[in-house]
Amino acid sequence: MKYRKIPDETVRRMPMYLRALSLLEQEGQQTISSRQLADRLHLKPPQIRKDLSYFGAFGTRGIGYPVVSAAQQIRTILRLDVRQKVALIGAGRLGTAVAAYPGFSVFGFDIAAVFDKSPAKIGKKIGRLVIEDMQSVDALEARQIRLAIVAIPAEEAQACAERLVRAGVKGILNLAPCYLAVPKRVKVVSLDMAMALGVLPYYM
Amino acid sequence: MKYRKIPDETVRRMPMYLRALSLLEQEGQQTISSRQLADRLHLKPPQIRKDLSYFGAFGTRGIGYPVVSAAQQIRTILRLDVRQKVALIGAGRLGTAVAAYPGFSVFGFDIAAVFDKSPAKIGKKIGRLVIEDMQSVDALEARQIRLAIVAIPAEEAQACAERLVRAGVKGILNLAPCYLAVPKRVKVVSLDMAMALGVLPYYM
Repeated sequence: MKYRKIPDETVRRMPMYLRALSLLEQEGQQTISSRQLADRLHLKPPQIRKDLSYFGAFGTRGIGYPVVSAAQQIRTILRLDVRQKVALIGAGRLGTAVAAYPGFSVFGFDIAAVFDKSPAKIGKKIGRLVIEDMQSVDALEARQIRLAIVAIPAEEAQACAERLVRAGVKGILNLAPCYLAVPKRVKVVSLDMAMALGVLPYYM
Repeated sequence: MKYRKIPDETVRRMPMYLRALSLLEQEGQQTISSRQLADRLHLKPPQIRKDLSYFGAFGTRGIGYPVVSAAQQIRTILRLDVRQKVALIGAGRLGTAVAAYPGFSVFGFDIAAVFDKSPAKIGKKIGRLVIEDMQSVDALEARQIRLAIVAIPAEEAQACAERLVRAGVKGILNLAPCYLAVPKRVKVVSLDMAMALGVLPYYM
């Protein structure tokens, strides 16, 4: 199914809706109003109604959204209805923390491979995964891994991103404190702890 | 100095400008045009000019921004012209990665204390810091620590945030995958790896 062009800000909020709905699914709740969902997420109900309307009307006025089917529809929209394999680049402190991060599974992500360039780390294990040589990144496409998390120092991140793109990666979560230049067909989302912390004193 | 109300999006980009200018300072460059700065940051020059104009005109048409004074002015605006002490809550895998993260120092942040509730961790060291009992969080105000990074499981994060607020904390960087409800006077910025990863398949 094709949807019309959706603002990035709306797409960015969709995983929030999905996480809330997944939790409600587990709790066995059948419907939720935009007001209740807004209260849970600390958003405004019209915002939620507008966001969800981009994907077609899947709520009923006065009754609300059916939890199970709304969750399933968002999963389909975000292409999270299939398990998505993810490569983790970097088995240092940050990479180790990422590998153990419990939040990915609700979205169906599966950290399927970990790579590092350090001979001291290659062959060791992080959780159930054996750390592989960075060279093996080149074979990601054959393993149907098209997502990667970059958790290596900033000065190595650009070269790594280029290698990932050559290996067929289509989406990168960048945790290195730097900008990654990639072709337009590849989507990068960067999380930068220092940048985020950097705005706080302004508001104090 | 008081500035007029500045959009959050502009404030959010200021640390990017500061990091780029700090690097140029180190490289000894004296001026930079909005075009050059835009190229480095992969933004549009009018965007940069508009952002910086909120804080008064500190560039000269045709010459550009003086690197050292522009950096200093942004530091003053963001209140990063003094060293800011930060408490790290959680000495698990993520906390350990945060403590070792090299990106904070360019903004003058100093991880000054680490706390954990686990008796097995209290008294041990992370880098140069001795892990303290969570109880000691209550004394943050006396130590002039008004910023905190929350790196603990989601189910403990809300109670922790409330405790931090009672201890006088004014800004929180939340790394737990959940929303934190705090009084309006306290600013929370959340970074959620799963949310960020969750949007990528949509674009693939």
